[in-house]
Amino acid sequence: MNMAQKPSIPKGTRDFNAEAVAKRSYIIETTKEQFQLYGFQPIETPSFENSETLMGKYGDEGDRLIFKILNSGNFLFEKNTIELPESLNTLMLKSLDELSISEKIELNKFTDGISGKALRYDLTVPFARYVVQHQNDIVFPFKRYQIQPVWRADRPQKGRFREFYQCDADVVGSKSLFQEVEFVQLYDAVFNALKLDGVTIKINNRKILSGIAEVIGAQDKLIDFTVALDKLDKIGEEKVKEEMRSKGISEEGISKLQPLFSLKGDFGNQVKSLKSILSVSEIGLEGIKELEFINTAISNLKLKTATLQLDVTLARGLNYYTGAIFEVSAPEGVKMGSIGGGGRYDDLTSIFGKPDTSGVGISFGLDRIYLVLEELGLFPNTITDATKVLFINFGEKEALACLEAVTQLRQKGIKAELYPDAAKMKKQMTYANRRNIPYVVLVGKEELESKMFTLKTMETGTQEKLKLQDLLQALL
Amino acid sequence: MNMAQKPSIPKGTRDFNAEAVAKRSYIIETTKEQFQLYGFQPIETPSFENSETLMGKYGDEGDRLIFKILNSGNFLFEKNTIELPESLNTLMLKSLDELSISEKIELNKFTDGISGKALRYDLTVPFARYVVQHQNDIVFPFKRYQIQPVWRADRPQKGRFREFYQCDADVVGSKSLFQEVEFVQLYDAVFNALKLDGVTIKINNRKILSGIAEVIGAQDKLIDFTVALDKLDKIGEEKVKEEMRSKGISEEGISKLQPLFSLKGDFGNQVKSLKSILSVSEIGLEGIKELEFINTAISNLKLKTATLQLDVTLARGLNYYTGAIFEVSAPEGVKMGSIGGGGRYDDLTSIFGKPDTSGVGISFGLDRIYLVLEELGLFPNTITDATKVLFINFGEKEALACLEAVTQLRQKGIKAELYPDAAKMKKQMTYANRRNIPYVVLVGKEELESKMFTLKTMETGTQEKLKLQDLLQALL
Repeated sequence: MNMAQKPSIPKGTRDFNAEAVAKRSYIIETTKEQFQLYGFQPIETPSFENSETLMGKYGDEGDRLIFKILNSGNFLFEKNTIELPESLNTLMLKSLDELSISEKIELNKFTDGISGKALRYDLTVPFARYVVQHQNDIVFPFKRYQIQPVWRADRPQKGRFREFYQCDADVVGSKSLFQEVEFVQLYDAVFNALKLDGVTIKINNRKILSGIAEVIGAQDKLIDFTVALDKLDKIGEEKVKEEMRSKGISEEGISKLQPLFSLKGDFGNQVKSLKSILSVSEIGLEGIKELEFINTAISNLKLKTATLQLDVTLARGLNYYTGAIFEVSAPEGVKMGSIGGGGRYDDLTSIFGKPDTSGVGISFGLDRIYLVLEELGLFPNTITDATKVLFINFGEKEALACLEAVTQLRQKGIKAELYPDAAKMKKQMTYANRRNIPYVVLVGKEELESKMFTLKTMETGTQEKLKLQDLLQALL
Repeated sequence: MNMAQKPSIPKGTRDFNAEAVAKRSYIIETTKEQFQLYGFQPIETPSFENSETLMGKYGDEGDRLIFKILNSGNFLFEKNTIELPESLNTLMLKSLDELSISEKIELNKFTDGISGKALRYDLTVPFARYVVQHQNDIVFPFKRYQIQPVWRADRPQKGRFREFYQCDADVVGSKSLFQEVEFVQLYDAVFNALKLDGVTIKINNRKILSGIAEVIGAQDKLIDFTVALDKLDKIGEEKVKEEMRSKGISEEGISKLQPLFSLKGDFGNQVKSLKSILSVSEIGLEGIKELEFINTAISNLKLKTATLQLDVTLARGLNYYTGAIFEVSAPEGVKMGSIGGGGRYDDLTSIFGKPDTSGVGISFGLDRIYLVLEELGLFPNTITDATKVLFINFGEKEALACLEAVTQLRQKGIKAELYPDAAKMKKQMTYANRRNIPYVVLVGKEELESKMFTLKTMETGTQEKLKLQDLLQALL
């Protein structure tokens, strides 16, 4: 055994106590229930994947944020076939920015030699891997949900963790826009079930962004253009235009964008303006048609409490999405980034050898939803209800009689505990108080003889003597 | 994007499909419910801990099986302060057995430099760390349960995985034997709730083993002696004696053991024999007294379907347990190792600076319980019930009408799906069949006009035309 250590956990990770676990479970179980009503099925994948499954799927920055696991068994190496770069000592003293490309490759080779596995970075790539690996057992269209932790070596900061849960629902194997319609309904259903009224489901379409880029002659600058547009809310019209200019978008193009900056009003009005902007762009008009289909269906079906809103500045994960793009924002007045997002992607599984499999999916930001529910006081009180009754321990004989009663209460579904030691009354009552246990039962010598149970209500302090049957009834 | 890869997962890990997830959830939720009835509260700890929290806690073999995580950020290192051992190249080409102690230390230093975190190896050490770290927020006695995955770099084989769930319930902060009594009840309650009747809860006590070692003059050979005795079931009396002789236990001592080999009958009879063997051992008699207390209480309280059985050969985790030792075996006829185990430990948290905190706990072997329930056909059919009704898609107009009905069904809690594409009838029916969906609804042109829904029962093939209200009723 080691010397005593002052215990701590790695930065960016968290311990969850009973209350936090209960609240998190509430969100997860409520979401699961809706997923299942909508026909989604759960899957789970391993916490670590082979490195080659993950590497190169998230860009350079993503690769750097993937946690790699050392090979085990024969100490550092599973096979004794790794050669150290001669210059390793020198390389390792450099910072990443100082390394040349060939030096990076050399270091990467070394890392690959000592580490062949890596922790899951998101649920999407493992899902794509799953679909391809099990394609013969899967019935398509495949509607799956997955709620598991992911790990990122990001710099920890407020609200950003190195271990956190993702919660995704996706369908692969169908291009039908009914999926998008159902995902809007699903968002509404989940947030309604969580009593989180008034969320806004923002929707856009990659094809509209492509159309606009086409119209202003900036097809080759689609990313620059959308990254700038995405900031409209935050930095305002003038700064957005400035950024576009700096990226080489022409003044003429920017002036064609003018109607975009004043897009206002409901879905119909916005679409009307968009149609005039995009009248010459085939792909743009296709995007509009898709949006209209979704909006019409949702208008007919009606949402419970959410609002569907067109937002042409929405561009999240653009090099990924090919059709609809979703983002959910918390009710007005709650300062919080998006609490959900998603979209359609047409080529997810081709990286693993299965091309032409269209998919569409959404995710829920569990940690942020937790914070919003907490801020608005929306967690039901009952979810943190733990033990209902504590039997005070006055000694072995009394405790044995209590344990018989406790056993019967539990069989009736009542959460009951016996204090394990015949400790001082005050200590036992403090335990009940700090655990928020609403009732205690006292069985002293007198009760033992008369086979009665004194039930005390903690809040009021009132006591009554009951037979076992009546005690059961009182606590049910 | 990479070239197409043939996807696979690391050896010793598993993907779980919807059916497996549902069955695993059933076991976990059933167990949780009993934990809560008994007053246990959930906690969760991070998947990885600081290496120093885990290393040195599981013995040399355990240390080797801990998955270490490479530091991230500045490529290999978070701080640029690691120096490579000059001989690293040579060291790394040796197998572990070939390394000298000083070489091992050198390699360990290098590993510590590139890896400061490691994946959880069990739930016990993180729990001890949690208790010490949060001791000021915890109300003692602290009854906690924890159900999370752990990772071990073990050689994968049938039934042994590198990622698997552990499921533990422990109490720390009380030496009361009522805890042991309640844990026996809890085992019984969980297996009863899982309808797994006829399990045997074997119980022993470290103090009895110490007492026996004392009586036969082998106090210094306690581990050797118990390891040999533990094999009685497998290798028989003669081979056990042989092993004891080979470990240097005297012929006189072994002859004193003779009554042990013929211990038979119920708890009472076994205890009687033990008392005569241990009459001169204070600690041995103390162990017997503890066992008798537990057995008497359980006899009074009565178990539902499990049997409590004294087994003096039981020695699991001996250098760890200080009092009661538990192990649960599957019902007779099912070939399976233990499906649960636990015991009392008196000094768990002292490694983290909190001495004198007695604890006792049990664990459930979820993977093995899964296999047993599968073998005995004990999973309820309903748990894998997914979608109840599929609406066939005959085209956009029909589908929109269907989606309205689907929306209403879901609001009533009925799991319903619309097939997203107007694919060929055969394809849609195959989907329903392969997904085991028991009902389909057909809305063609005629139904659309008459606002009726044709409900088809898949098993019988019967069809009936219903109004929406009646459809709802039929499917509730």
